[in-house]
Amino acid sequence: MADQLPLGYSAAGVYSGVKSDSSKLDLSLLVSDRPAVAAGVYTQNLVCGAPVTLCRNRTPSDSIQAVVINSGVANACTGEQGDRDAEQMAGKVAEVCKLDGKQVLVLSTGIIGEMLPMDKICSGIDAAASKLASCEESLIAAAQGMMTTDTRHKVTSREIQLDVPVRICGMAKGAAMIGPNMATMLAVVMTDAALSMDTAHEGLADAVNESFNCISVDGHTSTSDTVLLLANGAAGGPVLEGSSLAKFQATLVEVCEDLAQSIPADGEGASHLITVEVHGGATRDDAIKIAKTIADSPLVKTAVAGNDPNWGRIVSAAGYSGIAFDPTKVSLLVNGLLLYERGVPVVFDAAAVSESMKADRNTSIVLLLDEGTASARFWTTDLTTEYVRLNTDYHT
Amino acid sequence: MADQLPLGYSAAGVYSGVKSDSSKLDLSLLVSDRPAVAAGVYTQNLVCGAPVTLCRNRTPSDSIQAVVINSGVANACTGEQGDRDAEQMAGKVAEVCKLDGKQVLVLSTGIIGEMLPMDKICSGIDAAASKLASCEESLIAAAQGMMTTDTRHKVTSREIQLDVPVRICGMAKGAAMIGPNMATMLAVVMTDAALSMDTAHEGLADAVNESFNCISVDGHTSTSDTVLLLANGAAGGPVLEGSSLAKFQATLVEVCEDLAQSIPADGEGASHLITVEVHGGATRDDAIKIAKTIADSPLVKTAVAGNDPNWGRIVSAAGYSGIAFDPTKVSLLVNGLLLYERGVPVVFDAAAVSESMKADRNTSIVLLLDEGTASARFWTTDLTTEYVRLNTDYHT
Repeated sequence: MADQLPLGYSAAGVYSGVKSDSSKLDLSLLVSDRPAVAAGVYTQNLVCGAPVTLCRNRTPSDSIQAVVINSGVANACTGEQGDRDAEQMAGKVAEVCKLDGKQVLVLSTGIIGEMLPMDKICSGIDAAASKLASCEESLIAAAQGMMTTDTRHKVTSREIQLDVPVRICGMAKGAAMIGPNMATMLAVVMTDAALSMDTAHEGLADAVNESFNCISVDGHTSTSDTVLLLANGAAGGPVLEGSSLAKFQATLVEVCEDLAQSIPADGEGASHLITVEVHGGATRDDAIKIAKTIADSPLVKTAVAGNDPNWGRIVSAAGYSGIAFDPTKVSLLVNGLLLYERGVPVVFDAAAVSESMKADRNTSIVLLLDEGTASARFWTTDLTTEYVRLNTDYHT
Repeated sequence: MADQLPLGYSAAGVYSGVKSDSSKLDLSLLVSDRPAVAAGVYTQNLVCGAPVTLCRNRTPSDSIQAVVINSGVANACTGEQGDRDAEQMAGKVAEVCKLDGKQVLVLSTGIIGEMLPMDKICSGIDAAASKLASCEESLIAAAQGMMTTDTRHKVTSREIQLDVPVRICGMAKGAAMIGPNMATMLAVVMTDAALSMDTAHEGLADAVNESFNCISVDGHTSTSDTVLLLANGAAGGPVLEGSSLAKFQATLVEVCEDLAQSIPADGEGASHLITVEVHGGATRDDAIKIAKTIADSPLVKTAVAGNDPNWGRIVSAAGYSGIAFDPTKVSLLVNGLLLYERGVPVVFDAAAVSESMKADRNTSIVLLLDEGTASARFWTTDLTTEYVRLNTDYHT
């Protein structure tokens, strides 16, 4: 299926001049033809960008009609001028699209500590407004306009049959952290379903927990991470509840997982996408903490880069996660092969496991505990010399 | 001053055949001529080596007379056979040195998941016992016998005047985590002062908090990390208390800091030793958590490797440490130069800061908060392509 915008939305992506490379897009606009319910989930970093503060103050809402996104400059660590600039971006969109300033949300990603060139941003908003359209090409242009170090744009769409057919479409940006943009992760999910403000907020928070909160490229939480959900009801169905809502929520999680996984998969300089699964945890939080500790371990990540089934590094990382478990009941599989069983290493064909790691860009690490029934899944990348070279050579 | 053993101690280091390279030493013995008070601080990793379990059960003690250390095989993840082997090592030392098995502590470092070759270990203990001496050469041989990926042995000594002259001598091993030995950090500190079991235990725990707990090479806590303190009273003075004890404690901290700092300084593949200081924290724990988060950040570490004063990565790492602080009151200095002042980037000469980073193997990062008066200091290394290459190329 071609990616498509849900009903009532239009999109555009243009080059405004913020990025130095004029062959790239750097400003995107998403507009709904009617007020939409909007919810947001934001970075937990205390040091956050001005757009994050603006969006946090405006969501949840039942009257959002536009999202403007710029890439190249993050408008973070920019003090009060930064707040005024974010406000001005929203005001400019409102002026051009005949909305109230409060109906506009703002996202920025790029260099920290630099002021936005507001003249370029404002001309860019004019240009984007004149290009707004509902076709796939415009959708993709909008996804491209939010990219920084991404090597490809990230869009995913679903259509499900509820009382009426309902569409969900999401776009995201994010990749390994090259540069001071700090792998900012931005995502906007649009739907033509009708949601209450409460269900939009709770549903998005749950979906983010299952998806964007389960990826780790280098352990950093950026100053600008934001996920937005817009629901404009243009499909014409009733406000979702009960089994329709549950079906919608499952699809929302799928969309978020798709987008989330595409971020480490686009890790510049990475040679493997690693999926860490933990089963048998006492609680979901325990399982997540253990999976994240393994996923963040530079020793595990370098071992995978070297196609090395180094079970000791994985088991040791679980051991220092801070979560209590019985180490004599831990088992470990890499790419489906059992390496460690109930606290004791298994005699295995290391060359065969290594070959399986070499042959496939995806590496599976499965840790089995015997504490309960909770599971978690985390996605990350390996750690290669290329990753370090890119991050070392980058200069502020 | 030449490094010297405190009174009453003898030491030896030999090649037992556990390591494949016969030009290296791999078994060390430290013996006191009288029962010593002994305390230990051990890894928090749930997955721990058999020797850790043995030592944990035997300390604090007032009757330890020997410590045996082998390198090459960690005796970790080795099940019940591992426990029996650790016990046998202690028993063999007791037999040769005419002690009770319970008077012996055991340390092992090296590959995880392999059984100790007990025949080689036992012959090695015989050989070491026959070489025991109190000279500097024997002390250094003992320090060499505990090395794994270390490029140099680590010994430090102090003599202080209390009621009588008292000596403190420490040896350590540990370096960046190349291989499955996981940068195990081992240290043994010997003194001829007289300590009570309680003061030995509390003093060691405090000193470790100020030193070994403030280093980070790659965030891993190994399965075998151990620091032991032996106090045999051979100097002839009274059991320390009051101002004598305080003076002793200050020197014990110095010895531990010396040894701790030598571990990241010996980071294989590292080009900078980074000191992260946090001042103005609400509590010491807060300051430590922030310093550790900065020190563990791969983005900060790659920036330093590239001599890049990337303040955004440092401030952002502080922001996601999980500790609450007012980001508008944060300032940052790199190598003494102010880059960020009360929440706003400062215009600075990036080339000059970069030159200062290039010129010196030591990089200083100082983060100033305005929450209170607590401070913390953390030592780590940068993250270079060479580090990753070494960790990637290593195979289990």
